[in-house]
Amino acid sequence: MAESKKWVYLFEEVAEVEKYAGSWDGVRGLLGGKGSGLADMTRAGVPVPPGFTITTEACNEFRKTGQFPLGLWDQVLAALKVVEQQSGKKFGDPLNPLLVSCRSGAKFSMPGMMNTILNIGLNDQVAGGMIKLTGNPRFVYDSYRRLVEMFGTTVFNFDDELFEHPLAEYKAGKGYKLDLEMTAEDWQALVATFKAAFKKQAGFDFPQDVLKQLELATKAVFESWMGKRAIDYRKATGISDDLGTAVNIVTMVFGNMGDDSGTGVAFTRNPSTGDKKMMGEYLLNAQGEDVVAGIRNTDQIENLGKTMPQVYRQFMDITGKLEKHYKDMQDVEFTIERGKLWMLQTRNGKRTAKSTIKIAVDMSNEGLISREEAVLRVTPEVVDALLHPQFDENSKKTAVVYAKGVNASPGAAVGQAYFDADTAEEMAKENKQQTIMVRPFTKPDDVHGMIASQGVLTSEGGATSHAAVVARQFGIPCVVGASMIKIDLENRIMEVDGNVVKEGEWISVDGTTGQVYIGKLPTSAPSLEEQTDLLTLLGWADDIAARKDIRILPDGRKAPGLQVWANADYPKDARRARSYGAKGIGLCRTEHMFFETERLPIVQKMILAETSAERTGYLDQLLPTQRKDFDGLFEAMDGYPVIIRLIDPPLHEFMPDEEKLFEEVVTMRVKGETLGLKEKEDLLASIKSLHESNPMMGLRGVRLSITMPEIVEMQVRAIFEAAADCTKRGIVVRPEVMIPLTGTVKELEWIQPRLIRIARTVTEEKKVDFHYKFGTMIEIPRAAVTAGEIATLAEFFSFGTNDLTQMTFGYSRDDAERNFLVTYVAAGILPRNPFQTLDREGVGKLMQMAINDGRKTRPELEVGICGEHGGDPDSIEWCHMIGNNYVSCSPFRVPIARLAAAHAALKYSGQKIAEDK
Amino acid sequence: MAESKKWVYLFEEVAEVEKYAGSWDGVRGLLGGKGSGLADMTRAGVPVPPGFTITTEACNEFRKTGQFPLGLWDQVLAALKVVEQQSGKKFGDPLNPLLVSCRSGAKFSMPGMMNTILNIGLNDQVAGGMIKLTGNPRFVYDSYRRLVEMFGTTVFNFDDELFEHPLAEYKAGKGYKLDLEMTAEDWQALVATFKAAFKKQAGFDFPQDVLKQLELATKAVFESWMGKRAIDYRKATGISDDLGTAVNIVTMVFGNMGDDSGTGVAFTRNPSTGDKKMMGEYLLNAQGEDVVAGIRNTDQIENLGKTMPQVYRQFMDITGKLEKHYKDMQDVEFTIERGKLWMLQTRNGKRTAKSTIKIAVDMSNEGLISREEAVLRVTPEVVDALLHPQFDENSKKTAVVYAKGVNASPGAAVGQAYFDADTAEEMAKENKQQTIMVRPFTKPDDVHGMIASQGVLTSEGGATSHAAVVARQFGIPCVVGASMIKIDLENRIMEVDGNVVKEGEWISVDGTTGQVYIGKLPTSAPSLEEQTDLLTLLGWADDIAARKDIRILPDGRKAPGLQVWANADYPKDARRARSYGAKGIGLCRTEHMFFETERLPIVQKMILAETSAERTGYLDQLLPTQRKDFDGLFEAMDGYPVIIRLIDPPLHEFMPDEEKLFEEVVTMRVKGETLGLKEKEDLLASIKSLHESNPMMGLRGVRLSITMPEIVEMQVRAIFEAAADCTKRGIVVRPEVMIPLTGTVKELEWIQPRLIRIARTVTEEKKVDFHYKFGTMIEIPRAAVTAGEIATLAEFFSFGTNDLTQMTFGYSRDDAERNFLVTYVAAGILPRNPFQTLDREGVGKLMQMAINDGRKTRPELEVGICGEHGGDPDSIEWCHMIGNNYVSCSPFRVPIARLAAAHAALKYSGQKIAEDK
Repeated sequence: MAESKKWVYLFEEVAEVEKYAGSWDGVRGLLGGKGSGLADMTRAGVPVPPGFTITTEACNEFRKTGQFPLGLWDQVLAALKVVEQQSGKKFGDPLNPLLVSCRSGAKFSMPGMMNTILNIGLNDQVAGGMIKLTGNPRFVYDSYRRLVEMFGTTVFNFDDELFEHPLAEYKAGKGYKLDLEMTAEDWQALVATFKAAFKKQAGFDFPQDVLKQLELATKAVFESWMGKRAIDYRKATGISDDLGTAVNIVTMVFGNMGDDSGTGVAFTRNPSTGDKKMMGEYLLNAQGEDVVAGIRNTDQIENLGKTMPQVYRQFMDITGKLEKHYKDMQDVEFTIERGKLWMLQTRNGKRTAKSTIKIAVDMSNEGLISREEAVLRVTPEVVDALLHPQFDENSKKTAVVYAKGVNASPGAAVGQAYFDADTAEEMAKENKQQTIMVRPFTKPDDVHGMIASQGVLTSEGGATSHAAVVARQFGIPCVVGASMIKIDLENRIMEVDGNVVKEGEWISVDGTTGQVYIGKLPTSAPSLEEQTDLLTLLGWADDIAARKDIRILPDGRKAPGLQVWANADYPKDARRARSYGAKGIGLCRTEHMFFETERLPIVQKMILAETSAERTGYLDQLLPTQRKDFDGLFEAMDGYPVIIRLIDPPLHEFMPDEEKLFEEVVTMRVKGETLGLKEKEDLLASIKSLHESNPMMGLRGVRLSITMPEIVEMQVRAIFEAAADCTKRGIVVRPEVMIPLTGTVKELEWIQPRLIRIARTVTEEKKVDFHYKFGTMIEIPRAAVTAGEIATLAEFFSFGTNDLTQMTFGYSRDDAERNFLVTYVAAGILPRNPFQTLDREGVGKLMQMAINDGRKTRPELEVGICGEHGGDPDSIEWCHMIGNNYVSCSPFRVPIARLAAAHAALKYSGQKIAEDK
Repeated sequence: MAESKKWVYLFEEVAEVEKYAGSWDGVRGLLGGKGSGLADMTRAGVPVPPGFTITTEACNEFRKTGQFPLGLWDQVLAALKVVEQQSGKKFGDPLNPLLVSCRSGAKFSMPGMMNTILNIGLNDQVAGGMIKLTGNPRFVYDSYRRLVEMFGTTVFNFDDELFEHPLAEYKAGKGYKLDLEMTAEDWQALVATFKAAFKKQAGFDFPQDVLKQLELATKAVFESWMGKRAIDYRKATGISDDLGTAVNIVTMVFGNMGDDSGTGVAFTRNPSTGDKKMMGEYLLNAQGEDVVAGIRNTDQIENLGKTMPQVYRQFMDITGKLEKHYKDMQDVEFTIERGKLWMLQTRNGKRTAKSTIKIAVDMSNEGLISREEAVLRVTPEVVDALLHPQFDENSKKTAVVYAKGVNASPGAAVGQAYFDADTAEEMAKENKQQTIMVRPFTKPDDVHGMIASQGVLTSEGGATSHAAVVARQFGIPCVVGASMIKIDLENRIMEVDGNVVKEGEWISVDGTTGQVYIGKLPTSAPSLEEQTDLLTLLGWADDIAARKDIRILPDGRKAPGLQVWANADYPKDARRARSYGAKGIGLCRTEHMFFETERLPIVQKMILAETSAERTGYLDQLLPTQRKDFDGLFEAMDGYPVIIRLIDPPLHEFMPDEEKLFEEVVTMRVKGETLGLKEKEDLLASIKSLHESNPMMGLRGVRLSITMPEIVEMQVRAIFEAAADCTKRGIVVRPEVMIPLTGTVKELEWIQPRLIRIARTVTEEKKVDFHYKFGTMIEIPRAAVTAGEIATLAEFFSFGTNDLTQMTFGYSRDDAERNFLVTYVAAGILPRNPFQTLDREGVGKLMQMAINDGRKTRPELEVGICGEHGGDPDSIEWCHMIGNNYVSCSPFRVPIARLAAAHAALKYSGQKIAEDK
């Protein structure tokens, strides 16, 4: 017989596999996650039930031919022989039977998507022998009926009903409610019933040949790789169909063999707090599912030290080793069969955000992992979750839960309830209200209302309903399927058991727990100062990103990674940003200040001024307040750069609502009212003259400054007067004036010298000197394409990726998000919302061009990003790759960005900046 | 004395200059246009008055030091000696005086911007001698007072008034109205007065030393190079300040020395018709200005053959030679002094559009120039002027001119008069009226009204007024400064001598002549068929562009130049395009058909349909008419490709006006009317739900097709059913289906296979086969950036440069043109309106990237352009350079584009396609 390929590896043959596969990743590919884990534990001297793995290569051969490849079955039989020796039991031997499980296990975890068959090796004879051995007929018959059922449904794909129906009928006949009430005799009867059902459906008897059982089970696992569920899952998660699954044949061990047996689960550290203390529970004389089912009260793992001190010592020793081996907190399952400890599984344990950070920091301090590894262990999402506003725990205790649904999108939201999207949007946008949109369910038409709201609540649908998907996409707290709520759209109320909430009343929605409350529950953002572990970790992250050799510039010089700055319009935001670790202000939006109640009337008069002199008069009134704004900002950011963007939005945004005014005018005309009509008509005409078909691409930004330079002249004077005053007070100011919406260098040539003249005039008037810059946003595609020219004047670039994304895609964000973006993401036309995560292929490519061309002109060009993407980890990575100096984001996202910047630095450490267009 | 540089060249030393300068361009640079022309004529044996040129190098030295460079004056004196010999006269000799002119002459013509002084060499003594010689004291004193005046104003920069005032006073004293009435004695008296005035102002006598006259005049010419007028002119026209001017010292000859003397001007061919027949006029015993002034009746040039047969023969011989020498129709000036013919100037003659073409074609047929040269002689603007709609000549004869103003922007416009921009725009856009905007003058606020109108008429302002500048920029016929019109904005009328035109009445405005008529004058576009010379020329142009080796592709293969296709929505447009030489339809806008009166109600119902089935029902009603549209188009374009763009605009464009409906609803509510209110409210809500903040970047194009595929499915069915029907009738169809607004290849992956299935279904149903393509517009910046991916599906690209310009610049065209584009062009921030001439640096660069990346994926990718730029010569040149296969433009511009394509082909003949990003 020709030497056939090796398809089967015993757990202890791990070194041989590693040699063949070339790497541990190769081992995982060949043996799957579970198989490689069992082999790895075996190698580490951990007592693992004997067993072997059939490789993914065998699976792939099987998929091609529908047959076991040559030699496979012989190798299985040989491996089984070894396992019999190791376990001291014999497969199919009623006197000392070996039972095995047959489990799927692919390279990447696909929980519940493929088949597993337990208790293989049981037949009528073996069952009889086992009853003698264990003295526990109830356990044996229960195991046997499970095998028959699993075989039928899993190997032969029979309908579950075939077995569930007779069981239900039997229980009904006995008056049982729970399986627990079934006796040994009951299960014995059921075994007979199941076998009969099997025969009727299959046309042959349930196989008594244990090897036949093993063969069929193995084939069924292979086939389950190409089952619909598995394929769908892989498509959704991007796992390749070519990988195949391995099959693990493992000796069954039983914790219910008496009081010297038991089973349990444990975490090597506290998964909730991260404390370095084993946490777990166990049950004597029990099976794994008994622990999970919560039928009997489990014991704390510490007590095992009293009942079985030797096993406990061994357990603590093994888990200690496992933690060291995997360098992470482990989640283990174990069984004690007649005094012997078997480790059934170990894996990195799931944990809360808080404990993730504590464990990473602790393990690094313990010397188990490096600081880099600690930083990499914590994903930005973890930090996000930790800092997300949440309902105050004390308030929640006293508040009455109004309803409960599915926790579809996390976070705490408080707002006034509105029962349709249009109203919710209108109240949010026009009345500046906080709103919660409440609907039976949502449709694409409703997205604009969802986006405008703080939170969303539906009475129908589940975690994958439209409302849930959209809410998660946009980061809006959302509870769905709160089916106890009756929504009466006609009367604009909702009701739970006679408890009525009218439209406009306040409610609170907890997307993290699925609970809904009446009224306004206080929310709180956890204070960063108290999170000492997080502060430690972020400090390490900053150190990594600040290393001077993290990036190689195109000219060969070395450079550090990204800094994190923040977008802040007011001193209080700047102070928060600074306390969160921001190293500068990347965007201060000056026009926000124009909207303040006492200033808006002056701003409106200024806009409607008919002469430059009149306009300047109103601007003179605004100058002191703007100066005060900037003064506070410089003071808060003492020593750090502050980028101030000159006025950006179109002027009509400052004017009263046109439609409302039109309605008033028409009404007055129809009624024949003349008092004040003329004034209203004139105002309407003025507003109409400011109207634009596509305001996003109209008269705004630098275009506005060129057609009406008085406004920015006032702003620049305010900036430099404030900076001069601060300098005199001993504050170190680093103002950077940012001109928005540049599309051609000629715009800068027109405006920038005028503004610099004002800057010089002020510093001369005030007799102070400080360093300042003039630069521009890159947010128009043409600016990116002609960045080399623009850099002749601009001393810094800041990517306005919101607008750059709008114009590169030709998407008006408002319109796109409500009209087609959800459809596009759902249909896979866009991988994700490009307004949240930067589109590297399009927008990102333009950024890359702009940086390269800009630095060719001005090698020391400072480059940042101030669009929303500045706080998105994937986008931050791209900014690192293409050579940004910093990212600027909302103060709340600064910690996330700091971590993301470190991750990018580690991932691309020492690499050249990507120049490829 | 050291050998000094040669600063002075006699006209006959042209060979020596050429040797020194290295090329004729160098000669022009050294001697200026006039000097090199005189030298060139001298070499050709043409009798030119003896003279010499002081080089531009001398000028540049003079500019540096303020002194004549070493050796210059000696060379002038030496050259003057030669000229004395050649002319047989002596400078400053009263017995036989030589007078000279001292004329500026730079490399590039700067008409009227620099100084010229005539009659140098006259002083009291010489004047006396000349009177004896000529017996014409009036001429001599007139010449003398001119010299004094020119010297004062030009060399010494005295105010004109210094001389004009005494002359006016003198005439008033005598009761004269015209200079003509002045006698010899009168001029003699004036000479004395002028000399006294000169002395009083200068502090010294008018120089009697003729060499001093020459020296001062020469310096004055040099200095005039740096005069304000000259500098401004050069700045405006892009001529370098470093070039300097030459000075030409030329013997004065006089045509008023008796009946054997005379002077005249002539064109070697008819400048109006192009006929090959000398056309000119002359006067015996007269000076040049007498011919121009029109005081005496001139004789036709033919008559010179009778009066001075020998001179006439010589003249005809010389002009024939000049035409051959310059290979172009010449505009000559000549003087006969005592029977001797002197040629004073020859230059390429200005001519009408018609004659430009005829002369080019004739000269090529005569073998004087090649066909390539003939094609290059005719600029696209010439063809444009020829094909521009004009008022019918016969109608103009009988029509009464209502008013006359400045012809500010050419073309004929007919429309209803409206007296403000808003009304004009509203009537044009909403009522689809033809309008003429009439204003006293215009401001930037009015631009939207101008653009919406057929023509513009103002009662104030001149050729550089706002109205004039804007109208020319947008190609709108315009008459300005029609000051006899009184516009009464209050009563909405205009009036000329009691002749009232009310708002809304029809008027006709001739921007070519400046005339305004009441009523609708018939206009006609000249028929191309009758323009045989143009047809010949365009045929040659096509041959040039079609040469197979005009361009070298990046992979080294040779390729022809650009084809010209046309944008046409209806069969009649397609037929016109074909008759104008279009080789395909590059854009058929299918939605235009939806707007037709009988279809619009069905379209609106289709849009408001609530189910797909309902929508499909309405679309089924539209299918037959769409099929008919396409059938006619394919028939008209038998054998040629027809690109049909699927529906593009957002749906709200098909709906009634929202504001109007809102006004109706509000009015009904206020009045308490309920009948029909609900329907109106519902319709309003539907329209509101279609409203978008930036519709240009909203739900349109392929986005619409993906969210509502039924419409394009109907359209594709209609296209292929029509194509199949035509094929059965023996027509060769080449349909190309174009998907608009693609931003990612995934959009094509979603929609294109669906459409191809329909195409296949139809061809199978109809059992026919024909070649078709599916492709896309490249009009979103992201499409250009990711063109390599998009070309995996798209079989052709068509640049929609209107939208691509909008999004690359971030300009909404409507808003930009009315709000800031005029300001931007005026301030030089944009070199020109980027919606008319392609922005090569930004938009053009993206196109270049798209072609390069697209062809890397699909080497045979067909690339065209269907934006307005397809008809603009400068943009066409860019399309040639970057490798477009064709440009597509309005049928009317096809001839212009054919010529422009040939020009580009010749300019870049045999060159590689520009790949540089």
